[in-house]
This record gives sequence, structure tokens and C-alpha cells, in this order.
Amino acid sequence: MEREFIHWLRERLPAHPLLRLGLGDDAAVLDMADSPQCVITVDMLTDGVDFILSEIDARRAGRKALAANLSDLAAMAARPLAGVVALCLPKNNGLQLAVELYEGMLPLAEKYDLIIAGGDTNSWDSPAVISITLLGAVTEHGPLRRGGARPGDRIIVTGSLGGSILGRHLDFEPRVFEALKLNADYRLQAGMDVSDGLSLDLTRLAEESGVGAALELDRVPMADDARRLAEQLADGSTALDHALSDGEDFELILAVEPDEARRLLAEQPLDVPLTDIGEFVAEPGLWRIDANGTRTALASRGWEHELK
Amino acid sequence: MEREFIHWLRERLPAHPLLRLGLGDDAAVLDMADSPQCVITVDMLTDGVDFILSEIDARRAGRKALAANLSDLAAMAARPLAGVVALCLPKNNGLQLAVELYEGMLPLAEKYDLIIAGGDTNSWDSPAVISITLLGAVTEHGPLRRGGARPGDRIIVTGSLGGSILGRHLDFEPRVFEALKLNADYRLQAGMDVSDGLSLDLTRLAEESGVGAALELDRVPMADDARRLAEQLADGSTALDHALSDGEDFELILAVEPDEARRLLAEQPLDVPLTDIGEFVAEPGLWRIDANGTRTALASRGWEHELK
Repeated sequence: MEREFIHWLRERLPAHPLLRLGLGDDAAVLDMADSPQCVITVDMLTDGVDFILSEIDARRAGRKALAANLSDLAAMAARPLAGVVALCLPKNNGLQLAVELYEGMLPLAEKYDLIIAGGDTNSWDSPAVISITLLGAVTEHGPLRRGGARPGDRIIVTGSLGGSILGRHLDFEPRVFEALKLNADYRLQAGMDVSDGLSLDLTRLAEESGVGAALELDRVPMADDARRLAEQLADGSTALDHALSDGEDFELILAVEPDEARRLLAEQPLDVPLTDIGEFVAEPGLWRIDANGTRTALASRGWEHELK
Repeated sequence: MEREFIHWLRERLPAHPLLRLGLGDDAAVLDMADSPQCVITVDMLTDGVDFILSEIDARRAGRKALAANLSDLAAMAARPLAGVVALCLPKNNGLQLAVELYEGMLPLAEKYDLIIAGGDTNSWDSPAVISITLLGAVTEHGPLRRGGARPGDRIIVTGSLGGSILGRHLDFEPRVFEALKLNADYRLQAGMDVSDGLSLDLTRLAEESGVGAALELDRVPMADDARRLAEQLADGSTALDHALSDGEDFELILAVEPDEARRLLAEQPLDVPLTDIGEFVAEPGLWRIDANGTRTALASRGWEHELK
């Protein structure tokens, strides 16, 4: 079948001036002359963990897989360039599934001018696996890194957080254009995307920068979904708990110097709100700051893959 | 655990002048200034299909996964540059498995000066999946493509074929240095690697070139393993059948003009033999040529993933 599927796909992949050789060879050839620095990222998603194919339209799973990878390019403030898609699909109905996964990916690739340069499609008797690798071009403003936050920098987030499991984890928009705009127009010290939960990812950014992070909890922007999920679960968890630890928000966390942060917050240059939720501090760890300035330790919680 | 594993891996990945930012961020940053044209390829391997982890040292599976991808760079005559590794591993003992897979990959990466730029390590309750994406640099001699064979070109293969299932499919050496040398010193019209069987892959190369291929079957170099497997199976299949259709030989098939082919075969510039096994012809399809020049159709057989 691989041949039949490659034929289907070849007809749907648009030509691109930077793609010198596409599907049909052992590898694709890309023109990188205008991208002297590039970023590369890979993200693997699986049926039963990242989506449940028996419950959703497979197009949403395909879209999510590509969007999650695009969010990693956003996290680096890199311009999407090209990607390859490896699939392993159940033998039964696998061809139809391959088509639907790509039907979810292709419109998103087009929106972000991303070349789908190639792929590998396999079959087996276990659940579906989607592994996408993306290349992005570092712009003249450099890559956005996790390691540049300094004590005193403000913690800024885009959008609102929590409760993505109610659907947003499938249909979110990666903050690619937002990251490019912010990185071009403002001095950003550090940044990343929120994929595993605000408190966990913020801790990672702070650690990579060798600093700590102190949150003003009453400022954390909670998504309506966070409130809805807290009500639905009725397990004692609050909307704030969900905003802090749910994950798959795919918003941006940024470290910005106080003066630049004031300008950014006053100008609010994006269609999504930017919110100041605290500051980076010298003392390592994750903290909460109360109204009177008292700092107490805050647990860092989120999604981590379990390997024993 | 992902954190513990990343720590282990960070200590083992060597620095490289082209790797501007490695593990620990949302994406790696690579310096591509000296690689204005690059190739990109992805290959996904799974437990139970491409290797059987209950029967072998996992290091051999890790090595195979990287070697199969390197073979795709060889097929393009591209110089290995960088790669990312996505794993999905069973939760039970997954950490140890991750370490062993990388222990199989790292020496091979070092041998080919390949940067392991990053990865994604996941867990689930199904068999292990390894997906590797590699970037290679196209040299000044251009990429080797499937699409350039013309009627009259000779069909040349490296090494010997068949019976790789007896062990060589795990421990083969990708023909990276060989492909670079041949592409630099000889005029090659087209080329690819034999991953799914000589007859199937040769058919693919011929199709991509818009020509046919005619084999002189008594010239096909059979591996000792092909003979051994035919004896062991005793199912009526011959050593030649195995050489034609077994797959995972990871040797090179090349299309070379007759004069240049004569020079190449006389000089035998590699440590592995180069053998002329037939010629490309105008009429599409796969053929055998007898001693008296009679052409008859030959079945194209090999390994294809089955999707329904």
C-alpha cells in the first residue's frame, strides 16, 4: 500500500521553491541557503496517550501532532521551514487513517508555509504512532531560548491556561506568529511553550536559566475550561490548580526585563492577551508571592512521561 | 524520568562546533551556513517488525535504527550532519531500554560525525518505537537521486545480497563513506540503497527514472547468508531468490554510463566489491536477460508495509 498512499500524498503536497526534491527518493533535498541557522525539533504522539482515535475524528489527531511541533518552533521564535512525518499505523484500516491524519495536517502546514518534505509510513498490530520532525529558520532576531532569564525579569504568559483536556489540547493554535512578532519587536530574555503545565514548564525554564520563579497566583490567567473542568471533576481541585498543572495549553512563557515588560503589557500587540504573572528571582525553585511580598514554596506539577 | 534520562544523555553527547544549542531547550540550533543544500530523511522502526527486543541486545536495535537512517543519507551521497531521535518505550524497564538503545546509537553517530541534536522520549503500554530523522549535507558533487537512470546505463551494486535476516540486518555498515567516494570520483547517473529487496528497490529506481531494468541473474552477487538461509528454510526458495527479494541489505544500487562503469569496475575503488548486474532499458518494468540476450519479465518482490 505504501505506494498507493505515496501517490495520494504526492498529489496533495504543493511545490515549494525551497524544496528541490520531494517525495519519491530516499530523502528530500532542501535549499537552506537563506537559513544559515536552523532549529530542529521532534515530537512523537501516540494513540491512547496524546489522543484517543476511537473517540475523535483522526484529522484532529493529525492536526494536533503538527500543531504541537509547530509550538516548539514558536517556543524558539523560529520560522517554520520544513518537516517530515513518520507514521506507524494499525494494519486494519491503516490506509484510511493515514489519509485522515494528513488531511488534518495539510491545512495547518499550508497556513504556516511549512514544507512537508517527506515521511515514512509503517504498519503493525499496535496503536497508531505519529512522529514529526520540524526544521525552522532562526530569524535575524536570534532564537528564543530557555536559558536567558535573570532575577528581576517579569514572567509573562500569552492567553489563558488550564482545562485543555476539554478539547483545546486538540484544536489549539500554536503561537508561531505571536512568537515571531514578539521576538522581532521586543527584547525577550527567554521563552518556551507551555506543553506540560505552567508550573512544571516554568520550573524548567528557570532551572535552565539558573534562577527561580515566583508567581503571583491571583494573576494567573485561567481559561474558562479550567473553571469548567474543576466543576465537572468536583474532586477538590480548583480552576487555579488546573491552570498551574494541566498542560497542553501551548501558550508562551516569556522572561522580559521590567521596563520592556511594562511597554509590552501597555501595547498588548497580540490578538491574545499578555499577562504578567510574577518575576524571576535569584533563589532557585518555584515560589508563590503573596500580596505582602511573602514568598512560600510552590509545588511544580504537570505531565511527565513515566519510565521505570 | 524523562529528566533523569536527559541528564544521562546530556553527559554523553559530545560538543560539536555546528551545534549551537543542544538538549535542554524546546529545539536544538544548528549552524547550516556551510550546508546550503541539505537532505532530510526519517525512518521509524518498531519492536516486533524491525527487530525483536526479547531476542536481542537492545543496543543492536538502537544501532540498526540509526544505521538504516544513515543508509538513506548514503543513498543520496550526503554527508551526515545531525539527527533527532524520538522514542516511545514500554513503561516497564523503559529507562534501561532507552539507555541501551542510545548505547547502540552513540558509537555509530561518533563514527560518522553525526550530531545527535535532540530527541523526545515517551512511554506507553505497547511495544517500543524508534523514529530517527537525519539531516545530511549535499556535497559539491550534488545529491545522488533515483530519477537519473537512462537506457543503456549499467546497473551496479555494492557488496552481496540476501539472507540479512540471519543477523546482517542488525549489524550492517551503512555505505556512507562508499557513496561519498563514488559520487566524488565517478559520474553516477542515479542511485539508492537496497532496503526492501533488490528487485523491488531496483524497480522503484527505474520507475522514478522512467525506464526499465534488465538483470543478468547469474551476475547478482549472493551473500553467503543467502545460501545459508535457502538451505535452512528448505522451502524451495533459492539463494538467488533471497538475493533478489530479502531486503535490508543496505547496499547501494547505482546507474552508471557504460564507459564510466567499465572504469569503475576496473578500478574497484572500495573495500567492498562493485558488480555489474545488468542494464537499464527503455521499456518500463523489471526484466531478466539470458545469455543469448532474450528478455523475459521478472517479478518484483520485496518487503512492503501492509495497510488496508
